[in-house]
Amino acid sequence: MGMVGGGSGAFIGAIHRMAAALDGQIELVCGAFSSNPELSASSGSDLYLPPNRVYGSFMEMMEKEAGLPESERMDFVSIVTPNHVHFAPAMAALEHGFPVIIDKPLAFTYDEAVQLRDKVAKTSLPFAVTYTYTGYPMVKQARAMVRKGEIGNVRKIMVEYPQGWMTEKVEDSNSKQVAWRVDPNKAGKSNCFGDIGTHAANMAEYVSGLKITDVLAELKTFVPGRILEDDANVLLHFEQGATGVLSASQVAPGEENNLKICISGDKGGLEWANRDLNTLIVKLHGKPVQFYRTGVDNAYLHEEAALHTRTPSGHPEGYIEAFANIYRNFAFAVRKHRFGVEYPSAMDFPGIQEGVKGMALINAVLKSTGEGNVWTKVEV
Amino acid sequence: MGMVGGGSGAFIGAIHRMAAALDGQIELVCGAFSSNPELSASSGSDLYLPPNRVYGSFMEMMEKEAGLPESERMDFVSIVTPNHVHFAPAMAALEHGFPVIIDKPLAFTYDEAVQLRDKVAKTSLPFAVTYTYTGYPMVKQARAMVRKGEIGNVRKIMVEYPQGWMTEKVEDSNSKQVAWRVDPNKAGKSNCFGDIGTHAANMAEYVSGLKITDVLAELKTFVPGRILEDDANVLLHFEQGATGVLSASQVAPGEENNLKICISGDKGGLEWANRDLNTLIVKLHGKPVQFYRTGVDNAYLHEEAALHTRTPSGHPEGYIEAFANIYRNFAFAVRKHRFGVEYPSAMDFPGIQEGVKGMALINAVLKSTGEGNVWTKVEV
Amino acid sequence: MGMVGGGSGAFIGAIHRMAAALDGQIELVCGAFSSNPELSASSGSDLYLPPNRVYGSFMEMMEKEAGLPESERMDFVSIVTPNHVHFAPAMAALEHGFPVIIDKPLAFTYDEAVQLRDKVAKTSLPFAVTYTYTGYPMVKQARAMVRKGEIGNVRKIMVEYPQGWMTEKVEDSNSKQVAWRVDPNKAGKSNCFGDIGTHAANMAEYVSGLKITDVLAELKTFVPGRILEDDANVLLHFEQGATGVLSASQVAPGEENNLKICISGDKGGLEWANRDLNTLIVKLHGKPVQFYRTGVDNAYLHEEAALHTRTPSGHPEGYIEAFANIYRNFAFAVRKHRFGVEYPSAMDFPGIQEGVKGMALINAVLKSTGEGNVWTKVEV
Amino acid sequence: MGMVGGGSGAFIGAIHRMAAALDGQIELVCGAFSSNPELSASSGSDLYLPPNRVYGSFMEMMEKEAGLPESERMDFVSIVTPNHVHFAPAMAALEHGFPVIIDKPLAFTYDEAVQLRDKVAKTSLPFAVTYTYTGYPMVKQARAMVRKGEIGNVRKIMVEYPQGWMTEKVEDSNSKQVAWRVDPNKAGKSNCFGDIGTHAANMAEYVSGLKITDVLAELKTFVPGRILEDDANVLLHFEQGATGVLSASQVAPGEENNLKICISGDKGGLEWANRDLNTLIVKLHGKPVQFYRTGVDNAYLHEEAALHTRTPSGHPEGYIEAFANIYRNFAFAVRKHRFGVEYPSAMDFPGIQEGVKGMALINAVLKSTGEGNVWTKVEV
Repeated sequence: MGMVGGGSGAFIGAIHRMAAALDGQIELVCGAFSSNPELSASSGSDLYLPPNRVYGSFMEMMEKEAGLPESERMDFVSIVTPNHVHFAPAMAALEHGFPVIIDKPLAFTYDEAVQLRDKVAKTSLPFAVTYTYTGYPMVKQARAMVRKGEIGNVRKIMVEYPQGWMTEKVEDSNSKQVAWRVDPNKAGKSNCFGDIGTHAANMAEYVSGLKITDVLAELKTFVPGRILEDDANVLLHFEQGATGVLSASQVAPGEENNLKICISGDKGGLEWANRDLNTLIVKLHGKPVQFYRTGVDNAYLHEEAALHTRTPSGHPEGYIEAFANIYRNFAFAVRKHRFGVEYPSAMDFPGIQEGVKGMALINAVLKSTGEGNVWTKVEV
Repeated sequence: MGMVGGGSGAFIGAIHRMAAALDGQIELVCGAFSSNPELSASSGSDLYLPPNRVYGSFMEMMEKEAGLPESERMDFVSIVTPNHVHFAPAMAALEHGFPVIIDKPLAFTYDEAVQLRDKVAKTSLPFAVTYTYTGYPMVKQARAMVRKGEIGNVRKIMVEYPQGWMTEKVEDSNSKQVAWRVDPNKAGKSNCFGDIGTHAANMAEYVSGLKITDVLAELKTFVPGRILEDDANVLLHFEQGATGVLSASQVAPGEENNLKICISGDKGGLEWANRDLNTLIVKLHGKPVQFYRTGVDNAYLHEEAALHTRTPSGHPEGYIEAFANIYRNFAFAVRKHRFGVEYPSAMDFPGIQEGVKGMALINAVLKSTGEGNVWTKVEV
Repeated sequence: MGMVGGGSGAFIGAIHRMAAALDGQIELVCGAFSSNPELSASSGSDLYLPPNRVYGSFMEMMEKEAGLPESERMDFVSIVTPNHVHFAPAMAALEHGFPVIIDKPLAFTYDEAVQLRDKVAKTSLPFAVTYTYTGYPMVKQARAMVRKGEIGNVRKIMVEYPQGWMTEKVEDSNSKQVAWRVDPNKAGKSNCFGDIGTHAANMAEYVSGLKITDVLAELKTFVPGRILEDDANVLLHFEQGATGVLSASQVAPGEENNLKICISGDKGGLEWANRDLNTLIVKLHGKPVQFYRTGVDNAYLHEEAALHTRTPSGHPEGYIEAFANIYRNFAFAVRKHRFGVEYPSAMDFPGIQEGVKGMALINAVLKSTGEGNVWTKVEV
Repeated sequence: MGMVGGGSGAFIGAIHRMAAALDGQIELVCGAFSSNPELSASSGSDLYLPPNRVYGSFMEMMEKEAGLPESERMDFVSIVTPNHVHFAPAMAALEHGFPVIIDKPLAFTYDEAVQLRDKVAKTSLPFAVTYTYTGYPMVKQARAMVRKGEIGNVRKIMVEYPQGWMTEKVEDSNSKQVAWRVDPNKAGKSNCFGDIGTHAANMAEYVSGLKITDVLAELKTFVPGRILEDDANVLLHFEQGATGVLSASQVAPGEENNLKICISGDKGGLEWANRDLNTLIVKLHGKPVQFYRTGVDNAYLHEEAALHTRTPSGHPEGYIEAFANIYRNFAFAVRKHRFGVEYPSAMDFPGIQEGVKGMALINAVLKSTGEGNVWTKVEV
């Protein structure tokens, strides 16, 4: 693969590389790690890449790689830049015939997202958006159980995503990590919902198998002087009459990153939290609560979970492994696209539709808030 | 004390009696345990009461007891009947000069609640409403910490109250316990919010010290054929700009009764759940999370907690003990009213204001739902 | 009941009274609350007892109460004095025809314990020893499940009882609570094992249904200047080839009082801890772990648990409720003894045999330690 | 690196490869993946290795690789074979000048271990033994806190390692995974202690910084027909008067792999469990319990933890990451050995001494058991 962004010091770029490397299926062969050619070069060197495969710009990378013999050139592009630099390299990659795996949110605006969707439709190239949290084995298990009817008809879906790191005005701290997230020119129109709320919404749809149709949102900025919102409470309507609540916050002190989902059906409920990611709490009505656990040896798990598990039970998997599941599945999709090699359909990954939906939700919650917290249709 | 309701077989009546008995400060001396005189008599006999102190109706009890010499007659009345039989005995008690401790919600309608408030104001008699969950030592600690500024200015309050016991249509089961709760002629206009949502709202106000000013609610009935709602999602506005979410459900399979509160301020956060009631999770910004624990020997607890704790740390207290705290504090208030004996102000209990607020909230969430989930002022 | 010991300020006396009062089946009618007659009198007055039923010594109480008409005199005696004042009042009670409920350990020495056993055998009077922790509903459930073969043949039993309160030399603090526990003239020959290890041993035998036959112990005193041991590690042999480990400590900082048991059979395992007392972790081999929970409405629980539960699931019971279960069951035994009223055999309580076993274990672990940590038969 | 063992289908070989790949510092360049040359070849092909770097035997690999130019040949050898095939390839690697990283236990016998130790001493080559569990960030933190005196003088160390997967006679199942572990000709003289007890012992020494000097052990075989033990209870004596208990079991149903350590000092205690590996429970005497958490942004952590953490708090790390920490630190040691590049001393890893100690402990617990559970010196 080739990488756009993720120069030395960037957190998420390093995570993407570890995730890609984990299963021995993907090799980093080139990159345009920074818009600053010198930084790109030094980053490439840190990564043991040959200098001629380290590029000064993403466009240079697309062009030069496309000109290499097929057996040498990168198989796909990984894009890990800030939100406002998602669209251009993604579009360039597609135009040069490269499949794309990109960090969420998909783009800077909904319009960009739609253009990318159209391009993907036209090119039929594999396209992944790293909604990481759906890559966990127990999330796969939850989705499979819902699909098989094990909790009956879904009634209510609660999702929460509390973080505490923006409790104080960290944007004054000069950290690059923070700066772009709260700058509307880089992050887009939303901070809290766009950065983490969108994960929660994706989780709700993925596990339930139901689409969010309408939202009633109250976005709020608690920290004085902050431009974008740092807190979001959203009532949800799903297909088939299910309801829900999504609450995300970046100003919840002491909270690390604890995405949680609790889903209730008419036969049972399921509960999962990032904090204890290898456990799925299964609550069948009238029965003792059960703890399903990640583990290749846990015969009671569905194939959907088993295919995303690397270790025997009790050898905890983590965030990077979930990320790696998305990369590995995407690599299989690329291989299928290139060579026609089939692989299990349960090895899915979030794609362009999920990416567009994320952007549509950002629009909808902003609109709902702007109009005084009223029900707003999510237009996709 | 004398009891109205709570005949043999009634769950909550037995709990009230255990709570009253626990600290050796209150003695059950008489009762009108049922509107059926025979059932009242047999219940009184089961409770080892002399037959002449077991009455066939609450009105008979008020009159006869009021006619006894002061040193013999009951000191106060405990009312544990279904919601629609709250007002009449409470009013009768006040009119006969007896302090009242009554189960929540305070009354059948908001108007009844206001009449009771006026009567209490006029008579100056002690009056308690058993919002039990605020009686826990760690809830007292949480409130004290907020008041002392230990988490800074409160920003957001999340309260949840999931139960699962009404997942199926239990009202068809012929259980008395169920029947009245879902019958608008007995429970009032609300089931889920009135029965448990009101606890969550009270918890939010008690711990934060902030009043709920406006609600935006979506009440919903999931079980086909059920008359009153069994699920409630409510956005909250508090005084001083704090926001919140209240979610209550009776159709969350596998959930027992897990009232939870999570409150975030600009310096820290607090978290408490009924499931692990002797723990208060203290999350100061930037510090490791701490677990404060119930225990007479835990010197780091505030007086507010210490005054409501009976055992050394590690000897778990429970629901009945929280209930007993309310009874004991109320007994101290009665003693002060009668004999002028002072006691610590931290030994508070929920009273007529909290009861009226609960009824006002029921009105407000119904109105908000009826008008399409719009912000609605809570009129008290 | 009449009480010996438990004057104002004594922790455990107050707990016994709350436990006795909880279910409305037992009334405190008299007491000899202290060997100091004045303190006894003032304590009696604090408890609203008539002065003529408050005695200056336990012997006076036995004699005077025995002289009252049967319908007036106390039905049984509760003894809550320090260990060295267990034997005399217990023996006096039995000699005057009163059933006895007494705190653990049963006596100051094994010889005293045997004398009491002989006396109980001769008089056939009900006799209870308050090994409180076996009174919890989920402990009852665990025992029932083992008896019914649900975990197969028991192989291994791990019990732990860590406390931290003696981490420093608290005996220098002048607290009465501490003083007698570490004084061999009052506590007996053992502190840590006698005070808490004995609870753990009783728990192991009660849940497994197997007797401890041999011990290999290492008692140790960590705090400089302390006379009796404050830490104990013991290997256990049970009947039928089961093995186990018992570890108790009073110098484990941050540990409150967390008695734990983990029992493994050839079909499954069970786990219970005082810290989360309303949960029994059920681990059937090859199945997801299940969480059984206290609750009158949890139909999957055995009668043994149901008979010791007061509240619906999610209304946590605690330490006092477990204590109350022992008192209530003992009261039923007294009633049966007096009036022949039958009651369910599942309403058991720890008695003289458990008390004697506790004393025999103290002897055995001391002997094992003294002889260099060798296997030592437990002579009962 | 080159790998010995770990052909297709072997669990631990795949884990080693993922761990080595994670940080982009180590590349698999060759291997002798099986003693069956065909299986070795096909495994190499699955791993995208060129056929000329896939060898039919480890000896062939050592010889051929040693003959390559320094810049091409493997930098070190990773040995992931069953226990009885540890010594020969390790010795061959050292003799050919290759650093070694090898799975635990170090060897088949103590004598082999000593020979390896002598060889390492003579060659000065870097040598790592993958006691994985000490690679976790919170274990590093625990060790650092003990060393800095934050819990005072260590008094007691409890380690537990329960598993349930051998509850039934799995050796009859024809699984290769199982077969060698219970075969004395392949596993060595011990199964339960050698496989998992040795991890627990290493954890106790690593965190406490104290060596185990004496053991009193009871090894036991519960499953009928099993040759080696499946359960171990061991009393421990450490340097400086600390005591401890080690309990390991493979027949604890429902237990996955939950290595736990609880260490008490005279100022505080620490608790860590593999089940919740990113949490270190810190129990300072008299203070509320604190939860320290993995996270590059948790400023309160010591450097020892920070250097072994890849993600911000709330992005859970797992077993593979701990394994990768050992590989990465070993790679740094190899680089230092080859090129003199310095790196932080806190980036340590278990080496030959820990490996030898593990073998010595196996000898000692077997001897203690054989002589009737008596104190036995651990000869190193």
